[in-house]
Amino acid sequence: MTEDYGILSQIVSPTDLHKLDRQQLAQLAREVRQAILDNVSRTGGHFSSNLGTVELTVAMYASYSVPPDKVVWDTGHQAYPHKLLTGRLPRFHTLRKHKGISGFLSRKEHELDFFGAGHAGTAISAALGFAAARDQIGTKEKVVAVAGDASIASGMSWEALNHAGEMGTDICVVLNDNRMSIAPNVGALHNYLARLRSRPDFQDLARRAKSVIEKIPGPAHRIAAGLRHGITHYLAPEDTGTLFEEMGFEYIGPIDGHDLPTMLDVFRKVRELDYPVFVHALTIKGKGYEVAEDDSRKWHGVGAFDVEAQEIPKKGGAPMFTQVFGDAMIEVAQEDPRIVAITAAMPDGTGLTGFSKELPDRYYDVGIAEQHAVTFAAGLAAGGVRPFCVVYSTFLQRAFDQVLHDVAIQNLPVRFVMDRAGLVGDDGPTHHGAFDISYLSCIPNIVQMASRDATELREMIKFMAGFDSGPITLRYPRGASEDVLPESRTSIQLGKAEILGSPCVGAGSDKGSSKDPDAASGVPVRSRLNPSTKVAIVAIGSMVVDAWRAAEALLAQGVVATVVNARFIKPLDIETIASVATECGAVVTVEENVRSGGFGQQVRDALAGMGLDHVPVEIVSLPDAFVEHGAQPLIRPEAGLSPEAICSAVAKIHANTKIRMV
Amino acid sequence: MTEDYGILSQIVSPTDLHKLDRQQLAQLAREVRQAILDNVSRTGGHFSSNLGTVELTVAMYASYSVPPDKVVWDTGHQAYPHKLLTGRLPRFHTLRKHKGISGFLSRKEHELDFFGAGHAGTAISAALGFAAARDQIGTKEKVVAVAGDASIASGMSWEALNHAGEMGTDICVVLNDNRMSIAPNVGALHNYLARLRSRPDFQDLARRAKSVIEKIPGPAHRIAAGLRHGITHYLAPEDTGTLFEEMGFEYIGPIDGHDLPTMLDVFRKVRELDYPVFVHALTIKGKGYEVAEDDSRKWHGVGAFDVEAQEIPKKGGAPMFTQVFGDAMIEVAQEDPRIVAITAAMPDGTGLTGFSKELPDRYYDVGIAEQHAVTFAAGLAAGGVRPFCVVYSTFLQRAFDQVLHDVAIQNLPVRFVMDRAGLVGDDGPTHHGAFDISYLSCIPNIVQMASRDATELREMIKFMAGFDSGPITLRYPRGASEDVLPESRTSIQLGKAEILGSPCVGAGSDKGSSKDPDAASGVPVRSRLNPSTKVAIVAIGSMVVDAWRAAEALLAQGVVATVVNARFIKPLDIETIASVATECGAVVTVEENVRSGGFGQQVRDALAGMGLDHVPVEIVSLPDAFVEHGAQPLIRPEAGLSPEAICSAVAKIHANTKIRMV
Repeated sequence: MTEDYGILSQIVSPTDLHKLDRQQLAQLAREVRQAILDNVSRTGGHFSSNLGTVELTVAMYASYSVPPDKVVWDTGHQAYPHKLLTGRLPRFHTLRKHKGISGFLSRKEHELDFFGAGHAGTAISAALGFAAARDQIGTKEKVVAVAGDASIASGMSWEALNHAGEMGTDICVVLNDNRMSIAPNVGALHNYLARLRSRPDFQDLARRAKSVIEKIPGPAHRIAAGLRHGITHYLAPEDTGTLFEEMGFEYIGPIDGHDLPTMLDVFRKVRELDYPVFVHALTIKGKGYEVAEDDSRKWHGVGAFDVEAQEIPKKGGAPMFTQVFGDAMIEVAQEDPRIVAITAAMPDGTGLTGFSKELPDRYYDVGIAEQHAVTFAAGLAAGGVRPFCVVYSTFLQRAFDQVLHDVAIQNLPVRFVMDRAGLVGDDGPTHHGAFDISYLSCIPNIVQMASRDATELREMIKFMAGFDSGPITLRYPRGASEDVLPESRTSIQLGKAEILGSPCVGAGSDKGSSKDPDAASGVPVRSRLNPSTKVAIVAIGSMVVDAWRAAEALLAQGVVATVVNARFIKPLDIETIASVATECGAVVTVEENVRSGGFGQQVRDALAGMGLDHVPVEIVSLPDAFVEHGAQPLIRPEAGLSPEAICSAVAKIHANTKIRMV
Repeated sequence: MTEDYGILSQIVSPTDLHKLDRQQLAQLAREVRQAILDNVSRTGGHFSSNLGTVELTVAMYASYSVPPDKVVWDTGHQAYPHKLLTGRLPRFHTLRKHKGISGFLSRKEHELDFFGAGHAGTAISAALGFAAARDQIGTKEKVVAVAGDASIASGMSWEALNHAGEMGTDICVVLNDNRMSIAPNVGALHNYLARLRSRPDFQDLARRAKSVIEKIPGPAHRIAAGLRHGITHYLAPEDTGTLFEEMGFEYIGPIDGHDLPTMLDVFRKVRELDYPVFVHALTIKGKGYEVAEDDSRKWHGVGAFDVEAQEIPKKGGAPMFTQVFGDAMIEVAQEDPRIVAITAAMPDGTGLTGFSKELPDRYYDVGIAEQHAVTFAAGLAAGGVRPFCVVYSTFLQRAFDQVLHDVAIQNLPVRFVMDRAGLVGDDGPTHHGAFDISYLSCIPNIVQMASRDATELREMIKFMAGFDSGPITLRYPRGASEDVLPESRTSIQLGKAEILGSPCVGAGSDKGSSKDPDAASGVPVRSRLNPSTKVAIVAIGSMVVDAWRAAEALLAQGVVATVVNARFIKPLDIETIASVATECGAVVTVEENVRSGGFGQQVRDALAGMGLDHVPVEIVSLPDAFVEHGAQPLIRPEAGLSPEAICSAVAKIHANTKIRMV
């Protein structure tokens, strides 16, 4: 274990690699791998995928001239070596920390992060855009896209390959084939890639590759030979092209992605070509760190760990929403044989791993293919079963039209479960689930729920299981469920909110509620205070806890806040909200979503529609901006979500009310 | 020309075809073709694509048992024969008319419309969902998806093929390959299909097909031979599989899709297979109607026409927004070499055909691939050119995540031009552009504009051309620009609304404005009326015309309405709106978009944020429901958008105000 990065510490730009000989490049690769290990073990981050791209990145940057050449990475999972080779070693210890460097690429962070991405499958499209811009402007730089074998199966990648193959312009697509997405890869393409891999004798790859690159034909030769009679003949002398050749690419592969000398030979030759080339590199997730090689799924994204012990510390404490969902899902499915579950390549992240083991025949992993996942679910629903489509809030964005066009127009009972709704923390702006309340609430026929805590999540999953009237959605945040709310609970009813009431006077931060503070239970609070010090706090989902905390704090200041757990964004329980609003004379809404089209605007609009536009409403929500990465407890208050922010909103109403009273 | 449909008029269900012999089926096909010609020439509709699927549909329904078998059609463009063979001949004259039968499939309309679709590429996903539901439930019916060669190139279709090939369940995908989407097809897949087609001698297809189906191996044989050594060997005896075989399908084709006897043989055999089969049928768009065969693009979607004259009547009258945009686009691009235009398979519909001819090197048609179109545009913008991404409002839904994740997070200056924003009319709920204001307004960094008429559209295109600060969008409706607004115009400035003022007293329906009615120009209107009869009508885009008409009608009732053309949804010109709101004491907002997350809610919220929540606001918008098809002049008022609806909203405010004054 050393932190003496003799060569790496000298690298400021990828072109610095041009000065190094092969031995030095090999040493550089070792240092890059070590730097990843040293840093990620302390900061946490995406681990095994980045260990797999070390040689690939070194070889590419030694061969290409970046800049002006451009490399577009598909998601940042694989781009830590790129970060380290672009002068970010000194700041690498701040990885994924608040105000530190991002876990993904970011055009804001570095000029050589040509295109940011957190969602998979975008690189080939973006790279083709760069190539087309180059052709328009008339410059000559090279453009490379690096895609994983999972992301290349997403529909977008296919659309881009289709367009690139037709355009025929100078572009190189590198397939970083580690035979895994986050979980083991699925789909026919996966099987196809396995067949490609098995064609040449793996042991013999280096020698074969060498003979190939010596014989790579120039453009003139290539045209004469025809698209389907290119390089592959030498490597795999069959009377057939690969699928990628059928799409108009020259196919080179498979190559051992950890064989640095061969990778150097390949990239140096490929850089001279000026038509679409597809380089198929085989890599190993977790390469160089044995336990990660053995279980790359476990080591895909990790927290800090002890390098010597080779163990990821277990998390303890409160129940995680993801796990609670996973258990509830198995429970409802065991009671109802019509229930099936669908994931888009995220069995671990969404908590469906247990389901996949318990009920493998009723579990569908469609790969990174959210569009298909949703319409497939629509077909299942139309076919008479009860599909749960389980995705992160941020990834459901990718199937917005399918939710609207295939599910909602036909009013099909597809159950959408959205984990990671709200700010996700370290993964940053590409992964925050900040928009689903807005982009779903504009869709007719949709029911939108959010759960306040783990218990309610379970109840809502049961409610969804039996809801056959149309599409229904549930959102909940990343992290642990806090157990601070009053224990009394009402059952879930369509479009019905739950009045949690006000914290008891003197209860401090202890749990306790009084649905009717004027009733016998404890001191009749309201009667002791004048009406101007009342407020209704109407919160949805993850923000109910903060609303309750704010109510406790407000009580200490003599303000009686009645907390409403809205439960439903759509249909909104406007009767309950209006009655509490009338009673309290002021409303603060709270949501972990942007303001536009969000919960607060719906409440404000609905109250106005009932002639209650004289009741002041303050909206507490995420800002109209992309929130940067950082731990949730840091960025949530910064983004304006906290008990204090709720108290400020209450204070603002009271201040305004006084102004208007003048 | 006859309307004596001797056999067709007896068909109520596809299973009725089982009773017919081959001669009768051939006669039935002729009658189906005749019925399409007879009816579409009167009602208008999708024409040439439906003439191409006549024999394919007859053969399929004669071979399968529908129900219980299920056929899922990819978009309704090709499904008129299906409509005619499911008992809808008697109502076919109501095609696309209000309250008549839909131009697309609809689960509401018929139980054998198993899955509705207006957007392409969804059929294989939905069919696989039906197949999976069947497997869950344990029934044995067959499931077929019929996709076009353009829609199969969309990413979703690829995702579904990938999943289907892996699942290996009983499903048949029929590729209706007419070598066209609406416009000529593009993409590498298109070239690939052309190569497939050229393999066997086309003349000899029937004989070859016969020999193939005689030799189709059963499942056992198939497993023994391995995936890549199936049927294709007999048809195309090469040592290669097709791309579709690589994806796990048995490939049968190409077959002449108009050769009814062969199609019958193929489908009867394929129905016996219980694994993924891919049938590649070659059809001719416009088959049987010569001019449509010769120019299927022109005859894709038509209005009523004279069958004998074989001519589509030309439309006259006011300038169509699409054409105005197309001309403006050429104009700005001729002035600025950095401008490029992108369409997703809709050069005619979006008005880019002229651009594609004038500036072919700066024009990109990516095929039915909206996701790729947007991220490709993002890459172009990042690469330093100025992309216009031109799509229908309804189709941009398909790239919501790409707009958010690839464009907006990176704040890239992509120009989105959305035609068909608002109710499109005959195409119905799958095509209405009813949501873009909502789904875009929640995205940070986005600028949203809408133009009131043709002149403003041109100005806004010029404004967008020079706008490099980030993403910018423009919406305008289907149809013609009406020239009823005051001629005085202000220049387009970011986030600035335009006060059109009030119609002049006595001006009637003539044009005329008075920005300051108290000023010298004409009678000082306001001073003659009491303040309770004032209102501000703040309209966006297509609704400004109706707002003006409402203002004229209100004037006759003694209400002075000041009309504001908002121009920008985001950033909202809240200063101007607030000042007019304060002056008038009441606000009505008007938009051709749903209410949730729409323009009105933004205005209400912003006014409240300025402490103006005592100013009553009424919102006129589309309902929270999917609006059915019908001519625009019929369905717009039904959906609540008309000058009368605006006047009602004003009346409601005054009624409410009086109530509150009591």
